[in-house]
Amino acid sequence: MPKSYYSTVIDQPADEVWRVIRDFNNYAVWVDGAGSSEIEGGKSGDSVGAVRNVLYNGDRRRQKLLALSDVERSQVYRFEGVPPLPIWDFEATIRVTPVIDGDRAFVEWFATFDCYPEGQDERIAFFRDAFAGWLGSLRRHLQRLAQAA
Amino acid sequence: MPKSYYSTVIDQPADEVWRVIRDFNNYAVWVDGAGSSEIEGGKSGDSVGAVRNVLYNGDRRRQKLLALSDVERSQVYRFEGVPPLPIWDFEATIRVTPVIDGDRAFVEWFATFDCYPEGQDERIAFFRDAFAGWLGSLRRHLQRLAQAA
Amino acid sequence: MPKSYYSTVIDQPADEVWRVIRDFNNYAVWVDGAGSSEIEGGKSGDSVGAVRNVLYNGDRRRQKLLALSDVERSQVYRFEGVPPLPIWDFEATIRVTPVIDGDRAFVEWFATFDCYPEGQDERIAFFRDAFAGWLGSLRRHLQRLAQAA
Amino acid sequence: MPKSYYSTVIDQPADEVWRVIRDFNNYAVWVDGAGSSEIEGGKSGDSVGAVRNVLYNGDRRRQKLLALSDVERSQVYRFEGVPPLPIWDFEATIRVTPVIDGDRAFVEWFATFDCYPEGQDERIAFFRDAFAGWLGSLRRHLQRLAQAA
Repeated sequence: MPKSYYSTVIDQPADEVWRVIRDFNNYAVWVDGAGSSEIEGGKSGDSVGAVRNVLYNGDRRRQKLLALSDVERSQVYRFEGVPPLPIWDFEATIRVTPVIDGDRAFVEWFATFDCYPEGQDERIAFFRDAFAGWLGSLRRHLQRLAQAA
Repeated sequence: MPKSYYSTVIDQPADEVWRVIRDFNNYAVWVDGAGSSEIEGGKSGDSVGAVRNVLYNGDRRRQKLLALSDVERSQVYRFEGVPPLPIWDFEATIRVTPVIDGDRAFVEWFATFDCYPEGQDERIAFFRDAFAGWLGSLRRHLQRLAQAA
Repeated sequence: MPKSYYSTVIDQPADEVWRVIRDFNNYAVWVDGAGSSEIEGGKSGDSVGAVRNVLYNGDRRRQKLLALSDVERSQVYRFEGVPPLPIWDFEATIRVTPVIDGDRAFVEWFATFDCYPEGQDERIAFFRDAFAGWLGSLRRHLQRLAQAA
Repeated sequence: MPKSYYSTVIDQPADEVWRVIRDFNNYAVWVDGAGSSEIEGGKSGDSVGAVRNVLYNGDRRRQKLLALSDVERSQVYRFEGVPPLPIWDFEATIRVTPVIDGDRAFVEWFATFDCYPEGQDERIAFFRDAFAGWLGSLRRHLQRLAQAA
């Protein structure tokens, strides 16, 4: 099965990292280039089943929150409607785990999906690189928060 | 660690079982004796962090939703405030898994907690028996739904 | 991602079911038609990394044990060398969970793999039906053991 | 439930870290002060159910391997016989996860157990500090391997 996986270490405590990404509607705040996001139907961003409608790089995407755990500090979501690439059965997870040594956070972002065999390696690399880029945005956002405090 | 575990098989499809228990505020509907339940602060019953305030057998209890997954059909919660027994660090999970053979549901309800060594076996048995009883209520509720359909 | 999943309930206790399937080399005993099985290189059937060499319906297949857990009563394995179908990245899990109600066992057998889009549905159905069939063999084997006791 | 958890980041790839700790009998090699270890009954160190008999700081301890996974790079074990402290139902896990950013390893070591309420905090701290110390040994062992290569 095609799987894209990226992980990194962020120098803030796991609870601080989770506080930023926990709300499914906060995406536009910490991901550069996500111009705006809103949850459809007036639901809250911690409500499982919520659909966020994001304007990202001029494109509109809809993503549905499938699971949220304050125990594992994790979020699972999928695309709602047509995904931005010729893929299907996409399901992604973000998870934040404490690194006790140094009070930091181990952050994983991964997705499984299905696609045609031709171009599969490119699709896998595309999401892995996208996750790496967005976690870079998250790191910069947390650094700005820490400097402002 | 003290752990109470109960599991059973229910003759309805996993998705039907999950539809009934998914909303954290639906508890009063399917558990006999839970006279009433409401979510505090106007949150929805699928909002992680929601606190349900239940009147059960004349006692009031507050429980907080810690995780909800439509992927695993699972719910994690803990007591908020003082629990009804001398226990602490209580965390419970309900999970519904499809039994493909017969299109039924395997339903697990378990909790870990901490308590004094004296009386520990009684505490473990208390919750196991309570979970068994409430899953009996769930089974009867689903049978009534099936008959009414 | 293509995923085949089958699950059933067996009327023997989970520990009895696990005792039969735990040894990776016991496969020939409980799966009808698996004429013979041996572990390559003199390893034991509970040694992670062991490769079983099975003669099944006249065909020879090699499967490698990737994980074994007496805590979860689970086994993970993959094909070693060329699989019997045009699939790749096949990874299968068998897991046995106690059904407290009735002291029975909930048994799951599932696999993820990759294959060409044409024929994907047939591949998914093929493994699901195969898992169902082999769990039927397991059930009959356990019934014979119970009758002989 | 009492739980001790420690985690750190090691600068070698996850597969290299796993290669060192995978064999349940390799403990004496990477943990300073574990003078000698042998697996009882002639089993191999990757055989689930194996019991290692370790001479550690002049004391003899026996530990049983309960699960081993090359998929999750994880090991689960418990004390066999009388544990070295007044605790019971001890179960520990070591798990190695890749940190893609920098090709490093996130290493977790945690245990759940039961003990008397008095002294519980000390017990929790004892194992957390022990895990931290042994992962320090692992780090130094891997650095020596890297320098020798």
